[in-house]
Amino acid sequence: MSAAGRRDVLRATAAERGFDAVLVTNLLNVRYLTGFTGSNGALLVRTDGGDLFGTDGRYTTQAGLQVPDVELVVDRATVAALAREAVRRGAGRLGFESHELTVDGLHGLQRVLADAAAGGTVPELASVRRAVEDQRAIKDDGEIEALRRACAVADHALAELAAEGALRPGRTELEVGRELDARMLALGAEAPSFETIVAAGANSAIPHHRPDGTELRAGDFLKLDFGATVDGYHSDMTRTLVLGHAADWQREIYQLVAASQAAGRAALVAGADVVAVDAAARDVIVEAGHGEHFPHGLGHGVGLEIHEAPGIGQLGAGTLAAGMAVTVEPGVYLPGHGGVRIEDTLVVTDDAPELLTLTSKELLVL
Amino acid sequence: MSAAGRRDVLRATAAERGFDAVLVTNLLNVRYLTGFTGSNGALLVRTDGGDLFGTDGRYTTQAGLQVPDVELVVDRATVAALAREAVRRGAGRLGFESHELTVDGLHGLQRVLADAAAGGTVPELASVRRAVEDQRAIKDDGEIEALRRACAVADHALAELAAEGALRPGRTELEVGRELDARMLALGAEAPSFETIVAAGANSAIPHHRPDGTELRAGDFLKLDFGATVDGYHSDMTRTLVLGHAADWQREIYQLVAASQAAGRAALVAGADVVAVDAAARDVIVEAGHGEHFPHGLGHGVGLEIHEAPGIGQLGAGTLAAGMAVTVEPGVYLPGHGGVRIEDTLVVTDDAPELLTLTSKELLVL
Repeated sequence: MSAAGRRDVLRATAAERGFDAVLVTNLLNVRYLTGFTGSNGALLVRTDGGDLFGTDGRYTTQAGLQVPDVELVVDRATVAALAREAVRRGAGRLGFESHELTVDGLHGLQRVLADAAAGGTVPELASVRRAVEDQRAIKDDGEIEALRRACAVADHALAELAAEGALRPGRTELEVGRELDARMLALGAEAPSFETIVAAGANSAIPHHRPDGTELRAGDFLKLDFGATVDGYHSDMTRTLVLGHAADWQREIYQLVAASQAAGRAALVAGADVVAVDAAARDVIVEAGHGEHFPHGLGHGVGLEIHEAPGIGQLGAGTLAAGMAVTVEPGVYLPGHGGVRIEDTLVVTDDAPELLTLTSKELLVL
Repeated sequence: MSAAGRRDVLRATAAERGFDAVLVTNLLNVRYLTGFTGSNGALLVRTDGGDLFGTDGRYTTQAGLQVPDVELVVDRATVAALAREAVRRGAGRLGFESHELTVDGLHGLQRVLADAAAGGTVPELASVRRAVEDQRAIKDDGEIEALRRACAVADHALAELAAEGALRPGRTELEVGRELDARMLALGAEAPSFETIVAAGANSAIPHHRPDGTELRAGDFLKLDFGATVDGYHSDMTRTLVLGHAADWQREIYQLVAASQAAGRAALVAGADVVAVDAAARDVIVEAGHGEHFPHGLGHGVGLEIHEAPGIGQLGAGTLAAGMAVTVEPGVYLPGHGGVRIEDTLVVTDDAPELLTLTSKELLVL
């Protein structure tokens, strides 16, 4: 869908909820609705059309190229400039993103509206909630293609490193992490999706370990959680492997997590309740007596953000819909010993989900 | 200064302003005050001591390692948990970061405080403004050392690429950008400081151009704006060079920007007004008739963020102090032709500033 089409969807939502205009200040929401990739921009979507895109002087040329179809307002105080335009064009009820706008930002906006009304009626401000994020949760074909490419970059980077013997005892977590990042960039990623996690041995029991000088050792787990960003879309994958020889306890928790992850994927279908999907995977681990060793949710949406709607966990709410891109990533962590997490990025459909991260989930012994 | 020392500075500020406790929710402020590098954490600094650090179950182990000296609260709803503890420990006036907390976040906090007070007195909420950012604006020795290393990584990465002939006609902006990023990672950066800008030919006239498939051509400007992150601290440097042979108009605007940049650096001293520092550099460009081609501020603070206090520009406010780390980056952009920006990262002192980005600013013709 084009950016204009996405704005029309938001316009319909806004009209339905009684807004005359919506001020979009979340920069990723602005990107989604316009294509603009700069670091400062805001958008005013008006229910009777005539939208306005605002940015500052650094981005005048870029805005002309990326957002040729929306009227441009160039002003250092971007949000204030759009708010004044909203008043000038007669908005009576203005929507804002209350999950995004700060307390100071709201006070500033209220002042601008009062000044712009100049004694006349000050527009009413009301939250549109996560209207744009709700739209973003369901990916269109172009977005899914970007996610596919982002996942392929991560798959290939890991395959190349493994094939070259880069994952071997004596190397450090930091070395492996940097090579994985450099390989993803060479394969076309704009950036890693997040700070790559490389966790060897006992560090693998730390769910979000930061790579350090720890050396990889024979017989240790090696947990790699990483992803690539392509056209702004993030992939997310975790694989856990063993160096040299896998001990029985390692095979045991690996198979447990693999079974849990398979159960989670099997439960991933349009219409499923997110709490039930979490439970499908979690029950496998709880029944094996490791419930307390799985201290996080099962998964999360991915897209322009590495973590976005929907959340799939015990505290989640809502149901899955076709077109949602999500992770399924159970883990079992035994403090001081080691841990396993297996994570895929998938797209929900009305049938079996489409798997985007294609690296094997067999226990790889290198 | 240790994290504990930084908390004591905030504690003194809080006491002075009549707060019983301050709830720090900006994640970088939390990192600055604790050393914690995870993606979810909040801190309660209490004026009579007994601080609390909150995070969720993913980070229990990491918190124990990175924040051993602060009492730990593990809860998925981190901010709510700390707010309840503040009430339980008798806070009457609670500070929060109104530039950081969202409108929804404030409403949630108000509900939690009312519930926790259980009919008793609900603590008063008031903004502490940018108390922690103000503290962060003046770097201590450890921070300056991290910035020095971050700048050195960027310097060396560019020197290596230039020496290897990687900046030559026929290559694309994207290729050069990816190599620069990969080289910084190989030299020890955790990540690039921001999306590296590589702008060739007419693209150099776009202040914040995003690298694309544009090929470098003989006779063109090549503008590189990039930096490395080391231990969380960001460097920021721009160099503009010419491929093959520099035309007179290119030498002319290059010398103009270089003169402006030198004037900006010369004005950079403790006690100087930020507007005056901007003017010192801007006047050189305005006098040459190119005022309209310099559409951005002169510089900004760098540290745990790539853009932080102080802002050095026409709309800035305040004076410089010794220990501030800032950029000086004037530019002249001729739409459709080409542009030049020259940027250094420096530390303000009571005397001449310390230059951290050491790459030559002579016009480099490759």
